Amino acid sequence: MTNLKILVTLDSNYITPLKIMLKSLFLNNPHEKFDIYMIYASITNEEIEDVASLCEKHKSKLIPLYVREDMFSDAPVFLHYTKAMYYRLLAFELLPKTLTKILYLDPDILVINKLTDFYTLDINDYLYAAAMHSGITGFTESFNKFRLKTYEAAGYYNSGVLLMNLDLQRKYIKKEDIFKYVKEHEKELLLPDQDILNALYGHQILSVCDSLYNYDARRYHTYFILSEGKYNMDWVMENTVFLHFCGKSKPWKRNYANRFSSLYKHYAALTKR
Amino acid sequence: MTNLKILVTLDSNYITPLKIMLKSLFLNNPHEKFDIYMIYASITNEEIEDVASLCEKHKSKLIPLYVREDMFSDAPVFLHYTKAMYYRLLAFELLPKTLTKILYLDPDILVINKLTDFYTLDINDYLYAAAMHSGITGFTESFNKFRLKTYEAAGYYNSGVLLMNLDLQRKYIKKEDIFKYVKEHEKELLLPDQDILNALYGHQILSVCDSLYNYDARRYHTYFILSEGKYNMDWVMENTVFLHFCGKSKPWKRNYANRFSSLYKHYAALTKR
Repeated sequence: MTNLKILVTLDSNYITPLKIMLKSLFLNNPHEKFDIYMIYASITNEEIEDVASLCEKHKSKLIPLYVREDMFSDAPVFLHYTKAMYYRLLAFELLPKTLTKILYLDPDILVINKLTDFYTLDINDYLYAAAMHSGITGFTESFNKFRLKTYEAAGYYNSGVLLMNLDLQRKYIKKEDIFKYVKEHEKELLLPDQDILNALYGHQILSVCDSLYNYDARRYHTYFILSEGKYNMDWVMENTVFLHFCGKSKPWKRNYANRFSSLYKHYAALTKR
Repeated sequence: MTNLKILVTLDSNYITPLKIMLKSLFLNNPHEKFDIYMIYASITNEEIEDVASLCEKHKSKLIPLYVREDMFSDAPVFLHYTKAMYYRLLAFELLPKTLTKILYLDPDILVINKLTDFYTLDINDYLYAAAMHSGITGFTESFNKFRLKTYEAAGYYNSGVLLMNLDLQRKYIKKEDIFKYVKEHEKELLLPDQDILNALYGHQILSVCDSLYNYDARRYHTYFILSEGKYNMDWVMENTVFLHFCGKSKPWKRNYANRFSSLYKHYAALTKR
């Protein structure tokens, strides 16, 4: 069995959550081995060793991919955003050409069930598989669709979990298109990579269920009510694969408190052991 | 290394939580093996097999100890309480004489850290090690001390986690004393086995810290405030060993909701896998 391919992109501030995410991935997928591709620019060798040793402990492998200073030298940046905003969208340029498919995961995620059903989805005809966040669709989604003029796309996808068809991306995605779009729209961009994803490629995304594959941990009640009580906590723990701690309040902070905080902090403690 | 000895006593209704408790025990003590002594009267062979196979999966062993009808035939019963209330206190009569020490655990517990520090406590001079529930001491404890006339004991211990000195118990605890006490006080007994433990043996219990070894999952705020903010969720997840879901509302029920529900239900899901 070949190792499953996971992509993460990060800077130093996110080493702790990255390790927690990986720990949950390994523990809840004990029969899989993983190749973890990590695109980075500014973390220390010690930090890399630290993540690598966690991976090895779980029979998986870390492949660090350093982004050189001169890469994306023609990429526009604005406000406080750095070139890191392109790592996810242009990962196919940095990853080995032999890779055809990879699963990108944000570091503020817990993987709490096996991911193979999602990983093995047939996305031959799509650039990505991703989920829209249900229940927040009302105002926010209309606003985002209008803002980004993506009327033809099904909605506004969250870019925290992206199953990537690298083969098709290599053919279809041009970094010049992305840079051009950024230059023309920088005043409208709020979450640049997510906005670009939706504006340029929203119509080529396979839409998956967010309660399974990108559950917004702030919105237990929304899911519960929209599902008419079906998606209660038992359901979430038995079915949800990617539990995404979206938003400004982060679960690795001391004062984070909601009904998923004990679960997150348990995985944080497991990661330290 | 010899296997650690765990005691559980139960009836059919608690098979599911028992398995969840054991799963958490095994997963969070991966370097230990356990002998699980299970005292029971009314569960099926299938249920025993089910628990046994969970134990074997984690390199541990289930030792079912059936309580015959005629055992404790002289034991007084009252109200809705059955002879099961004596299993915990008189376990030393049912357990192999070669055992000197065992750790009793209620089934409504999650074991979330390694228990060896607690298990290896020196209790040579005590019948038990156990914890009082802090913060609820005010009224309830005074009430219980008055009710049970145990002025000389340090307080009112919770009987959900009991480290047992079986050698000393065999010398010191007489079932006649217990039966006599029950006959004379049945009108005052609210939680019979816990009340008896406190009334008769409260002064021979080594008192341990409840935030570590018998954390009442209903009382996050109490612990947080009493510790002046030290026992936050990070602390609990890194330090607490026995998380006890005390009280009527039970975490394996659908509608259970507090800040520990995701953690409990995650272990429930892990147990089903």
